[in-house]
Amino acid sequence: MFDLKAYLANKSSRINRALAAVLKTSGKPDRLLEAMSYALMAKGKRIRPILCLAAAETIDGDPQEVMPAACALEMVHTYSLIHDDLPAMDDDDMRRGQPTCHKAFDEATAILAGDALLTLAFQMLSSMATNDHNRQQAFKWLRAIQLISHAAGYCGMIQGQMLDMASERKDLTLAELKSMHRLKTGALIEASVSCGAELVGVNSTQIHMLENYAQKIGLAFQVTDDILNVEGDPEIMGKAVGTDERRRKTTYPALLGLAESKEFAAQLVKDALRALDAFDQKADPLRAIARYIGERNH
Amino acid sequence: MFDLKAYLANKSSRINRALAAVLKTSGKPDRLLEAMSYALMAKGKRIRPILCLAAAETIDGDPQEVMPAACALEMVHTYSLIHDDLPAMDDDDMRRGQPTCHKAFDEATAILAGDALLTLAFQMLSSMATNDHNRQQAFKWLRAIQLISHAAGYCGMIQGQMLDMASERKDLTLAELKSMHRLKTGALIEASVSCGAELVGVNSTQIHMLENYAQKIGLAFQVTDDILNVEGDPEIMGKAVGTDERRRKTTYPALLGLAESKEFAAQLVKDALRALDAFDQKADPLRAIARYIGERNH
Repeated sequence: MFDLKAYLANKSSRINRALAAVLKTSGKPDRLLEAMSYALMAKGKRIRPILCLAAAETIDGDPQEVMPAACALEMVHTYSLIHDDLPAMDDDDMRRGQPTCHKAFDEATAILAGDALLTLAFQMLSSMATNDHNRQQAFKWLRAIQLISHAAGYCGMIQGQMLDMASERKDLTLAELKSMHRLKTGALIEASVSCGAELVGVNSTQIHMLENYAQKIGLAFQVTDDILNVEGDPEIMGKAVGTDERRRKTTYPALLGLAESKEFAAQLVKDALRALDAFDQKADPLRAIARYIGERNH
Repeated sequence: MFDLKAYLANKSSRINRALAAVLKTSGKPDRLLEAMSYALMAKGKRIRPILCLAAAETIDGDPQEVMPAACALEMVHTYSLIHDDLPAMDDDDMRRGQPTCHKAFDEATAILAGDALLTLAFQMLSSMATNDHNRQQAFKWLRAIQLISHAAGYCGMIQGQMLDMASERKDLTLAELKSMHRLKTGALIEASVSCGAELVGVNSTQIHMLENYAQKIGLAFQVTDDILNVEGDPEIMGKAVGTDERRRKTTYPALLGLAESKEFAAQLVKDALRALDAFDQKADPLRAIARYIGERNH
């Protein structure tokens, strides 16, 4: 039986060490770096970087080899949380069990800390192949930047946040809701899996199956997020609940009801597992993560 | 006699066409793309991308080859203007002769449009070498991303904006003022020159001279910026003047007086020209740009 708890703890601690090392070499400590570190090193699930490492392992790659991409994904995710929490956006006070970045520091510092984390992600990846020794690695890291920037940018996450804000006080259809979430959270989750796999040399059949897996868990993640916003425990989650209803946002529970939303999430997890059928036990971490997403309480 | 006016007009129009083409292929038109385009296609001097093209020409490179880097530099510059103008930062109403992005749209859209332009810069550069045909070009574009992200990020432009905000209502020494500006505007101007030169194969003696040039004009640019904030014409400049004094910012005119600031700018331009002594007439555009920075009225 695969021990997911131990796996997640082990990977999280490796990721946290790698993130701390990047911050440490980024410059001398000051208010900006403090704000970046405050948001980045807060207790997060590290789902995206762990997916990246697990996808590499699934096709027998060395997870340490894709660690820079894993770190970049977490930086991009954290920047998006800082900006989404701003007063002009979702105006949230709590995140990852602590005051949001603009509450702990100030609005200007939060905007710049987000900008700096986004930039640092690409700075770090572009520094992976800068001398003749590792010149032939350049293509690989350029591809990682392409995958992550495409998922994070205008055609992905940022577009999703625009649609999400526009959807407040507006009824969406199920198709519109799915497409909004595919952009807002799905794109970066999909990039996490494909980055991890592509960097260690995936073949085209495998990448197709992994993309299918990532698409299903990305959507499942959002459905459970909506469910937790209705019935989650704010203590365990480290952020407020009930906010979707107050903002009159279209959610899966609002559209489908709570019971049917749970069934939908369960079906998505089943679909994700089926997408991995052709892989051996090296895909067990990805399988366990899919189940975990369906059952998570935070 | 080198015709700078014609040169700038010609380069600007090429750059504008290239920028418009990138936006056009970025996705379907909507409010986010509209805000990105509003800020990016506004009447700007295009100094950074022009420096990038002119640096390539100086060492006999094809300027069209470095156009993606030139576009990325203008995107990064524009994103920084959008975020710096936000109410939580400098709270400016006018920019490039039109209402600032958050005035024309709204604050949330402006934050996201800035984020999207920054991300698009790296997305575009990372898409330059994605198939086997141009695989050997990957190193070059990875290096461009490294130069630009380093200049834009925590150790460069963003750090400069943090220091700039912290300096309001606080007296800086001349050394502190120079170091703040070296980060805030100098770093990206230096990256513009080195990017243009490195992408077409500069040698180490040449890059050293070009970096020296860039450092001088970067500082000269900021000194004239401060002078124009005192005695410029808001009509010609497309933004308000007198704002530094109102915010009690330390500036060159405040520290050195207006006359001595002008002498300082003139000396920096002379130093920049001297740095180019070893180059032939192919450096004439860079020379003319240095003189133009010393004499500009907007």
